[in-house]
Order: sequence, then structure tokens, then C-alpha cells
Amino acid sequence: MSIYQHIKQSAYDANMELPKLGLVLFTFGNVSAADRSLGVFAIKPSGVPYENLTPDMMVIVDFDGKTVQGDLRPSSDTKTHAVLYKHWEQINGIVHTHSTYATAWAQAQRDIPIFGTTHADHNTVDIPCAPPMSDAMIVGDYEYQTGFQIMDHFTEKGLDYQEVEMVLVGNHAPFTWGKTPEKAVYNSAVLETVAKMALLTEQVRKDTPRLQDSLIKKHYERKHGPDSYYGQ
Amino acid sequence: MSIYQHIKQSAYDANMELPKLGLVLFTFGNVSAADRSLGVFAIKPSGVPYENLTPDMMVIVDFDGKTVQGDLRPSSDTKTHAVLYKHWEQINGIVHTHSTYATAWAQAQRDIPIFGTTHADHNTVDIPCAPPMSDAMIVGDYEYQTGFQIMDHFTEKGLDYQEVEMVLVGNHAPFTWGKTPEKAVYNSAVLETVAKMALLTEQVRKDTPRLQDSLIKKHYERKHGPDSYYGQ
Amino acid sequence: MSIYQHIKQSAYDANMELPKLGLVLFTFGNVSAADRSLGVFAIKPSGVPYENLTPDMMVIVDFDGKTVQGDLRPSSDTKTHAVLYKHWEQINGIVHTHSTYATAWAQAQRDIPIFGTTHADHNTVDIPCAPPMSDAMIVGDYEYQTGFQIMDHFTEKGLDYQEVEMVLVGNHAPFTWGKTPEKAVYNSAVLETVAKMALLTEQVRKDTPRLQDSLIKKHYERKHGPDSYYGQ
Amino acid sequence: MSIYQHIKQSAYDANMELPKLGLVLFTFGNVSAADRSLGVFAIKPSGVPYENLTPDMMVIVDFDGKTVQGDLRPSSDTKTHAVLYKHWEQINGIVHTHSTYATAWAQAQRDIPIFGTTHADHNTVDIPCAPPMSDAMIVGDYEYQTGFQIMDHFTEKGLDYQEVEMVLVGNHAPFTWGKTPEKAVYNSAVLETVAKMALLTEQVRKDTPRLQDSLIKKHYERKHGPDSYYGQ
Repeated sequence: MSIYQHIKQSAYDANMELPKLGLVLFTFGNVSAADRSLGVFAIKPSGVPYENLTPDMMVIVDFDGKTVQGDLRPSSDTKTHAVLYKHWEQINGIVHTHSTYATAWAQAQRDIPIFGTTHADHNTVDIPCAPPMSDAMIVGDYEYQTGFQIMDHFTEKGLDYQEVEMVLVGNHAPFTWGKTPEKAVYNSAVLETVAKMALLTEQVRKDTPRLQDSLIKKHYERKHGPDSYYGQ
Repeated sequence: MSIYQHIKQSAYDANMELPKLGLVLFTFGNVSAADRSLGVFAIKPSGVPYENLTPDMMVIVDFDGKTVQGDLRPSSDTKTHAVLYKHWEQINGIVHTHSTYATAWAQAQRDIPIFGTTHADHNTVDIPCAPPMSDAMIVGDYEYQTGFQIMDHFTEKGLDYQEVEMVLVGNHAPFTWGKTPEKAVYNSAVLETVAKMALLTEQVRKDTPRLQDSLIKKHYERKHGPDSYYGQ
Repeated sequence: MSIYQHIKQSAYDANMELPKLGLVLFTFGNVSAADRSLGVFAIKPSGVPYENLTPDMMVIVDFDGKTVQGDLRPSSDTKTHAVLYKHWEQINGIVHTHSTYATAWAQAQRDIPIFGTTHADHNTVDIPCAPPMSDAMIVGDYEYQTGFQIMDHFTEKGLDYQEVEMVLVGNHAPFTWGKTPEKAVYNSAVLETVAKMALLTEQVRKDTPRLQDSLIKKHYERKHGPDSYYGQ
Repeated sequence: MSIYQHIKQSAYDANMELPKLGLVLFTFGNVSAADRSLGVFAIKPSGVPYENLTPDMMVIVDFDGKTVQGDLRPSSDTKTHAVLYKHWEQINGIVHTHSTYATAWAQAQRDIPIFGTTHADHNTVDIPCAPPMSDAMIVGDYEYQTGFQIMDHFTEKGLDYQEVEMVLVGNHAPFTWGKTPEKAVYNSAVLETVAKMALLTEQVRKDTPRLQDSLIKKHYERKHGPDSYYGQ
């Protein structure tokens, strides 16, 4: 049995959640699961339909994007995962989807405004949209540069990747992450819901104001603060 | 067997309706069931996925918000339920969700206009949206104050909680209630549908007028008046 | 065995299609099936959930709206069905729903413009929206008058109920009919789809023109004309 | 056993994907599968519900639109399929649907702008909308002319049918094709998703710009270029 079996299984399980949650059409998404003690992550093979996937098909890749084990070609977005794992040392799962509403905001190149407590339960800021990448980044090592585009945007905006576990890449689509692959998948579903609610909110009232600071703080802290009282 | 078994079962059954009706993502909702002779209610434990719930996990809480029985932490919204049960003595079930369309209206801080008979079958007035809470209420005992925000709004608008069994809390999301937990769940589904229809109606015609009084009266009374002739 | 068994079964089968087609929430809809040789129709009992329905629960009513057989109270909309059966002698099935998009157009009191061939496959005209009823009609025998509101609108607009098998009642919701209950249900699903497509079309392009006459004629006649060549 | 069994089975399988993918209501769609060595294609019979279909019901038609084998009448759109097979010699599958969002764009007579990478993964250009057909084409051999309307539009716009495997026919609905029936069905689902995302994108931001050329090229070529690295 492979020493990578646990992350293969974990990546497989998390990938299989995407179609159940309505976040992917065909193969338009991928999840990876990292083991930092081994310095690798397991990721979905490229272009394989979800109904044909097995845990053994997962490809093992190191944090420089080199395949360590596996017969199949890894997801075309593998280098983006590798870069984020390499530099953001507290995350162990990453998800990329083209979920409908989040992708619409990404294509429109807008941050998702914080309009309510559903959003504030998970983030204290607008969900950031990194600007479209420059021609130089695109014609270069594109997927590798996508990772840097995300990290540079977080640095520029002063965001902490351990607090804000999601981003839109302008013109493209969302990425989410977390301490576990399950949490990263959870974040993808939350993002899609918040994206849909935000569009509907602007349709109900064009000039809806952003949430007041006290309510942002309250909802975020009851789930995530030192005195949190949500969950068990 | 617990003397609370009947409300644990009732709260469990009602909670399990929420995902079936498409009203919740993950754990974003909760239902409670009260027994007024015992002075308590059963409520969903906080943050437990619906697929893992059992009737025995329900937490028994009194109308001051104190846990009476149960090993798990009750829903973070428990105090809002407690306040409403304490002051609105004819209700025995309360539901809170972040259902998509109702939440969009809540975030936009607008009452839902009464545009048709689907609405009038259930309410004779616009569905009220309580204003966002003040900073003082939020930093204080937030969930407790949420209950008062709802009740104060009903008082100010001259609304009767036995006639209007639903409210939007501005910036947040809907609450519904009823004589039974089943009725409260029913009201949550009706609210979500009416909220969606109202947005679509404004999209079909921006200046759609509110319903005329005679039709409001007719539809409401055929379901709820002394001479009602809907149902068995 | 009842001499009405065939229409009870037929009405039951047709009613059960409504939730499968996503056209109803809870009990917000009803279908009837007529036997003109017996001068009666079978209709859903009022307010009974679809999952509890059986063919035997269907209520037998004559074309003046009088119950002929059955222990349960018939649908509150029964008199509308009776009036339409009495005056439109070629129809044997009627459906009423509050399906979401069709109801939005009804609430907005707009005819649904004929924008494409999906519409023209079924109708050569905009789908008519009868104006909201007068206060006098509403406070009088409301459901009976609803039938007349529909028929009067058809007369005024010069529409033929055998060609146009659907209508929106302003402020209320759609009614559809047909030579059989199955056809009437089919029409309800078509109407909901056409209503959704028409709203989306206006959102894609606000000033979308109505379909040209030649294409309306072509599509309608290939399904319904003397030289039709659609179907078997 | 028929010498056409393989394309009957292939056409049947591909047709049955349409309801699973949510692309058709009732019988509003059809798929065909060609065998170029035999000079024929198998196509869905007209107006037969998907739940009643069997592989043996598929009708065998030649590239001039003449039925070669089969007891049922072929799809009313058969001549459009025949014309495309006759002139576009590299395709072996064609799909026609009235899927909701793609049809809305067709009714609005607009090309779908290329707003993001989901689109660029499949096409480097806006998805073309052929103009509504002239009265002369419509009153003539309508379905035959529909094929020419599509091909003429490709010629006029300088599009290559092997690169752009989808089109909207103005006022009508989408057609897609591909080297196999499976690929043609895949294209129909992609088109519907891209059409929905594009409308939502314009709703999030009215003046969203089209995608920059470098990103279009990058995404298209990683799936389709000589150095593609997507899939296995």
C-alpha cells in the first residue's frame, strides 16, 4: 500500500463532493490534499470524469510541481496548487472550480461586497478579486504565475490567507483553500452561495450598502474569535 | 425515555425538512419545537450537519435561554428563539434559515411588496423587514436583542404575530414561526417562494403596483377567515 | 367500482405530474379531468399534500360546480374549472398552478411576448394576461367570476381557446387547458419554460423585437397545421 | 441485426444524455450520429418522449435527408442535420436543443461575448448568433435552409466549423456538433453554461470587457493546441 494512500483517499473524497454540491460541470474543477510531513500533495488527474475517478488515480506532486507518483497527468492547474502550498504553509487543501455565480463575479472583475451575515460568518472583508493577469504572466508559466497573482493580491491588500480562504481570479474563476481539503470544499460552496446572494441583493436594491462594522465583527467572532460559540 | 421525547422528535423532523425543501446549505438553519406545559423547547445543536442529526441530539432549553437537558451546545441563535417563545405565547415552532431569495431581500433591507395572490394567501401586508440592529444591540447580547428587534418592529408597525408569521431581519436573514414546528417550516418555504416571485416580478416590470385591497382580503380570508373554504 | 373511476385516475395521474415537473410548492396547484358524456369532472381535493393523494380522494363535480360524489371538499378553485368546462365544450382537462416564472408575469400584468420558436411551436400570439379583476367580481362569487374574466378576455382579444390553451390572470397566476388532462399539464410546463425564456431574453437585450410573422406561422403549422409533420 | 446498429445505439445514448444534463423539456431536442462510410446518420424519431425511446426507434437517414430505414418519422429538424453532414465532412454528431439560457441569447439575437476562461477553454471567439432567417427561406424548405443559414454565417464571419462547434440561430435556439455525438452533447452543455455565466456577468457589471487576447490564446491552446496539456 502506498505511503500516499491517506491523501489520495482524502483528495478523492473531496473531489467527489464537487458534483454533489453542484459546483462543477463535467471536469471543470479539481481538489488537492497535502501532507506537509511528506512534502507532497495528491491531486485529481486532468480531464477524467468524476464518475470514473478512483482514489488510486490521484497524482502525487511535490511543492515545486513535479510529479512524484502516478500514471496519469495531473490537473492542468497543478502548478497553481504547488505554489500556494509552498508559500502558504498552513493550508492542506485547495479547490478550484468554475462554479456559476462566483465565476460571473470573477469575469466581471469585481470584489463581492459584504452585504450580510452569511458573508460575515466567513469573512470580515469583501471577497477579493485579483486583477486579470498581465500578458507577460500569461505567456510565461501561466499556472505557476496564477499562484503568484493570488498571493501578490493578498499582500497588496493586506489580507491574511488564514482568515480569507477564498479568492476570485479576474477573468477566470474562484480558488479556495483551508486547513483540510474538506474545509476548502466547504469554502467553495459558501463562496458560490454568497456570490449568488450578492447579485440578487443588488437586483433587489441597486444601492445596497455594505454591512456595518459591528455586525461584521460580531458574526465573524461568534464563529472564529477566541470566544466563539458556534459549533461543538 | 425522556419526558422531552415528543418535542425532540418534532424538532428533529422539522429540521430535516429544511434540506429537503432546499432552504439550507450545510448547517445554515435551525428549527425549534416548544412544549408550553413544560416551559421548554427542543432545538438543533449548533453546527451539526443534517445528515448526522438524531432526535436525541436535540437540546432542551427554557424560555430564558438556559439549557435544561442535552450534551451538545444548542444553536447559536437559541436566545432569539427563547425571547420569541417567552413573549409570543401562541407559537410553538420557530425556524431560522439563510434561504437565498429571502436573504437577498433582508440584505437589501426592503419589505417584500405584496404583488399577487400567492403572497395574499398567506399575508395581507408586505412581508416586514426589521431594520438593521444598532451597534449597541449588536455588541450587547446579540441573539437576545435580535428577538427584541423583531418584536419591536412588529409593535411599531402594528403587526400581529399570529397573522404575520414571518419577518426579515435587515442585513441578516428570515425568521418564521407558527402554532407548530411544521407550520413554521411551511412558512419558511412560502417566504422563499414569495421572495423569488417578487424579485422576478420587478424584473418583468419595474413599476408593478401592489395588489388591490379587495383581492388581498379575498385570498387571505378564503384560507384564514371565519368563512374559510380552503383545505379540509 | 365507481362509474367515475376513469376520470378519478386520470385526474390523479395528472395532478401527480405537477410536483415532478417542478410546477408546484406544497398544494399550490390543481388539475381536473372531465367526462362530457357524464357531465362531470374529477378534481383534486383542497389542501391535500400530493404525497398523500390517492385516486379515490378525487372529488366529482358537475359543470355548475356542485359536488356529485366525494367525501372531501374540492379544490377552492373548483368553480373556475366548472365555468370553463361549461362554456368551452372541447376541453377535457384544466390545470391551475402558481409556477414561479408564469406567476411573475401574471403579477406584473404583462402578456408574454412571442420572442422565439419555442413559443411559436405552441402559440401564434403573445400569451395573454387577463387584467386584474374588478372589486365587484372579487367580492362576489370570486372563483366563478375568475372563469368569466378569462373567457371575457379571450372574447375581447378575439382569441380561440382551442388554439391558445393558456392564460395568465393578472395579479394571480396561470391557468392552462386542453383536450386531455395530460395536454393541459404539458401546457403548464411549456408556459413556465416560455415565461422564463422571455424574461431572460429581455435581460440579455432589453429591446428584443417580437418574432416575424413568417416564422411564427412556420413553427406553429409544422406542429399544428393541416400539413403538420411534427410527431408520429 | 441491422448494419446500422452501432449508430442507432450511439444516437440513442447521446439523446438520453440531454434530459440528464437538464438541456431539454419533454421532446424539445434531438441528437444524430453519422457513419460516413455508410453515408447515413441515425436520428431521434419526432416527438417521442425520452422515457419511451429505444435504440431501435432511431431513424436512418441519408445526407440528402431521405429516410433509409425506420418505421417512425424522423425529427422535424432532420434536414438541418442532413445539410450540415453533407457539407461539413469532419463531423459525426449533431445536437439541437432549446436549452434555456442559450435560447434566450438566440432570441435576443446576440453573439455571446467571450468574458472568461470557461468560454476560452472551448472557443477563441464570441459564440456566433446567425441572424434570423429571411421570409423567403422560412416559407421555402425551412429546415433545409436552416442548415444553410448556419453555414453561410460561418463563411461570412470566417469561422471554421472544426474550431467553433456551436451556433445560435437567431429567434430560434442552439445547434452544436463534433467529431462524435458525445462531443456534440458535451458542447451543448458547455454552451448552456457559458450562456448563463455571460448573462450573470453582465448583471454583475454591465460594461464587462471582453477577454484579452493572450488569455484567450493560452486557455484555448492548453486544451486544443499542438502543445496541449489538458486531459490524458
